[in-house]
Amino acid sequence: MSTVTETTIEADPDVPAIRMTREFAGTPEQLFRAHTDPELFAQWIGPSSLTTRIDEWDARSGGSWRFVSTRDGEEFAFHGCFHEIRPGRILQTFTYEGDPDGVALETLWFEDLGAGRTRLRTQSLVDSFETRDGWLRSGMETGVNEGHAKLEELIRNGIV
Amino acid sequence: MSTVTETTIEADPDVPAIRMTREFAGTPEQLFRAHTDPELFAQWIGPSSLTTRIDEWDARSGGSWRFVSTRDGEEFAFHGCFHEIRPGRILQTFTYEGDPDGVALETLWFEDLGAGRTRLRTQSLVDSFETRDGWLRSGMETGVNEGHAKLEELIRNGIV
Repeated sequence: MSTVTETTIEADPDVPAIRMTREFAGTPEQLFRAHTDPELFAQWIGPSSLTTRIDEWDARSGGSWRFVSTRDGEEFAFHGCFHEIRPGRILQTFTYEGDPDGVALETLWFEDLGAGRTRLRTQSLVDSFETRDGWLRSGMETGVNEGHAKLEELIRNGIV
Repeated sequence: MSTVTETTIEADPDVPAIRMTREFAGTPEQLFRAHTDPELFAQWIGPSSLTTRIDEWDARSGGSWRFVSTRDGEEFAFHGCFHEIRPGRILQTFTYEGDPDGVALETLWFEDLGAGRTRLRTQSLVDSFETRDGWLRSGMETGVNEGHAKLEELIRNGIV
């Protein structure tokens, strides 16, 4: 019997935000590392069909980041700044460069569930419901689920 | 006859954002400079009763900022990162350190009205209506109006 874990992806009913939740069999420190170490991050972010290279990465409060994911020569680039990085919480901005005017304010929380388990919660806030609903319709769940599955495997294999 | 200009400060009806608008007798380039040059910015930001010193200032996409305003030894500190700085638009994050968990995603637009005039529009987006309404109740309009009046004077005096 195999269990397929999926990340819960929800539209907030009141504000133009997307919320995601997933539990991992890793400590908050491992999850934090997987989100702040560029070499680890590049190994799991995004759908399995893409390869990611880190273009810029300064994971400290006030730093910034940019990565480029490629598939058959097609490039998808993303960038933002790290507003605050502290144990248990990352606050950053996020722009997909295919839509250069769009931006989200993203918060990630790493909640210690004990026994080596962590609940990852994320919130992506944008400034209109139209934009938010467009993101939800973009097929993002594939990248999120495949990315998180890769992250689980990195943890399982002791790489994170 | 004297005219008192006030900045229009409005709560968005649909999303947890505060929008402000004010017209200035200066060009978009002057307004942009007043928001990106740290020595100019420190001369006008905030209420007249406070003195501001810049603690950190790297006004480029991916840079960060921090300033401290003081009155009678009391300090009010603010920080954030610049997500994107381009002519006509600044996108940045904003935290008042007295409320270290709070953060806003701020957008500033400098709209050319011709004849040396500019409309400044700003949007501060937070993740709940409670937080947004708390900011509106905080007395922020004094700082905004006094700050913008100082900025008008800098333009009038040819300092910006």
